[in-house]
Amino acid sequence: MNTVGDLGEFGLIRRLARVLPTTPAVLEGIGDDCAVLRYADRLLLVSSDLFVEDVHFRRSMMGPEEIGWKAAAAAISDVAAMGGAPLFSLVSLACEGGTDVAFVESVYRGMANVFSQYGGVIVGGDTSRCTGPMVLDVTVIGEVSGNRCLRRRGALPGDVIAVTGYPGLSAAGLDALERGKDQAELTQRHRWPRPRIREGQWLCARPEVHAMLDTSDGLVQDAEHIAEASGLGIDIESARVPIAPILARHCEEYGLDAQALILTGGEDYELAFTMGAENHEETLRALNNEFRTVVTVVGRCTDEWTGVRVDGREPDVGGFDHFLNRDE
Amino acid sequence: MNTVGDLGEFGLIRRLARVLPTTPAVLEGIGDDCAVLRYADRLLLVSSDLFVEDVHFRRSMMGPEEIGWKAAAAAISDVAAMGGAPLFSLVSLACEGGTDVAFVESVYRGMANVFSQYGGVIVGGDTSRCTGPMVLDVTVIGEVSGNRCLRRRGALPGDVIAVTGYPGLSAAGLDALERGKDQAELTQRHRWPRPRIREGQWLCARPEVHAMLDTSDGLVQDAEHIAEASGLGIDIESARVPIAPILARHCEEYGLDAQALILTGGEDYELAFTMGAENHEETLRALNNEFRTVVTVVGRCTDEWTGVRVDGREPDVGGFDHFLNRDE
Repeated sequence: MNTVGDLGEFGLIRRLARVLPTTPAVLEGIGDDCAVLRYADRLLLVSSDLFVEDVHFRRSMMGPEEIGWKAAAAAISDVAAMGGAPLFSLVSLACEGGTDVAFVESVYRGMANVFSQYGGVIVGGDTSRCTGPMVLDVTVIGEVSGNRCLRRRGALPGDVIAVTGYPGLSAAGLDALERGKDQAELTQRHRWPRPRIREGQWLCARPEVHAMLDTSDGLVQDAEHIAEASGLGIDIESARVPIAPILARHCEEYGLDAQALILTGGEDYELAFTMGAENHEETLRALNNEFRTVVTVVGRCTDEWTGVRVDGREPDVGGFDHFLNRDE
Repeated sequence: MNTVGDLGEFGLIRRLARVLPTTPAVLEGIGDDCAVLRYADRLLLVSSDLFVEDVHFRRSMMGPEEIGWKAAAAAISDVAAMGGAPLFSLVSLACEGGTDVAFVESVYRGMANVFSQYGGVIVGGDTSRCTGPMVLDVTVIGEVSGNRCLRRRGALPGDVIAVTGYPGLSAAGLDALERGKDQAELTQRHRWPRPRIREGQWLCARPEVHAMLDTSDGLVQDAEHIAEASGLGIDIESARVPIAPILARHCEEYGLDAQALILTGGEDYELAFTMGAENHEETLRALNNEFRTVVTVVGRCTDEWTGVRVDGREPDVGGFDHFLNRDE
């Protein structure tokens, strides 16, 4: 017997995609951050994101508003990843009958706060009793203005790859929380991630930007998604990946490998994108001027090989998979 | 502390609706079968439906294709309930890492079969590990042709209320399964419910039809949803509610109360609708001619009181609530 744990989340998704038929209105189906649908001469982006207790969050470490915020932020980050804006959301909640109503209300308030800040509104969903851990499923319907969205495929040889923000901050924040060190500056990117809706829309309007996703599985693995979808290789220069000072200090204090954290730490919900190398500094400077968002080139695309290398070598680091059986 | 079990599913939904803001594009938000959204001069219907192991299904009684079929059928029945047709679906699955991949593939095949039969296509979703029971969340995006949909509100005093099919058949089928009596004719409406997409669209095109929903909580409780949303009373004449011969035989064999079953048995996914009394027989005959679907008037709407009565009296029977704490 082959279990879903043996296969991992991405393996399972590939298998399921083979079972499911598609239609011409589905411009992008299973496999990217959102499905892209042609509807009424517009491009709809739709995506669902599960947020499962003891897999994606622990109640001992996050309050209900934080749980709601993070679930919704992660969901609309998928819309940001394609250059769109959220319009509507459906939320489904399965939890035990003994759950405090005030707790559930706070979870929904946390979600509503994300939508009121980034656009969109919760219009429905479902609730059910469940004898196991709390399960939230946040579906987002968004759209891109114009008729262009950015996908994982589309990266070209010679492109640079850049990321917003500081990779690994969310993972460092989680590590701090696990050590009982709740220092807001370090833990806020883990507990209150900020989807890059405006930056994503801005990048989508630039024809020199070729491919994009949001970083949820760790930089190396996220780069692998782009490399695989685009059929090329991405070489990450580890020395160029920015290290947040607070992350460096945390790693020093506890003897952690900062390099591993910035290459594999998941759940950052930053944007990673590729663009033509020519004049790319100008575009990145303009992005930074517009939003005050840190953005850094961390590598380059090539057609000489496929997959992801770090400093020219196959990385011995994995990424983040919510399904895969691991020893940890 | 107030728990979600104390409040019940409908109480919880009312509480959550108060937390959540809305916008003018949301013509119908939380509380009906689907949310109704104005988008690009069309009316979108969107709905999510949870299907939770040991609450909505048991693996001992249903195979994986049946689980998938029923989850998807229940979800698109919400679109049928408003007179629309399904276009796209997102499916989220949380299950244990040890789950057989072949089992999961069969679940998705069951869902895909529903969509290929009734319209629509699965375009995405999410998967996650979960340490508890299997949780499926099926989101459906549909639309109505024309600019009209049928809601729970809109019923008028003097309207008759009619239902398609035979109420209680699903509950009788479940009872048979629990007794280990897997007789297809009796259990098929429980295991392979058929959403009334075409009948719903047909009814939606008739201006004399005023309100509609799909019967998922039991006839009395479903009628209560219409009565409450429309602000009137519905009197069900129990003698008019059709009893399927196979249901009658099953009840006789095991000493069950057929009346209770047809008034409170949930998960039928038939349509209940109200329409002007004038010439209603003609319309119902035309519906039957078109689809060969049994359709029966079971009561009448009044403005003399509110709520639901059965044969003029307050019913002492409840309905189906997946959350409510009960002694059973």
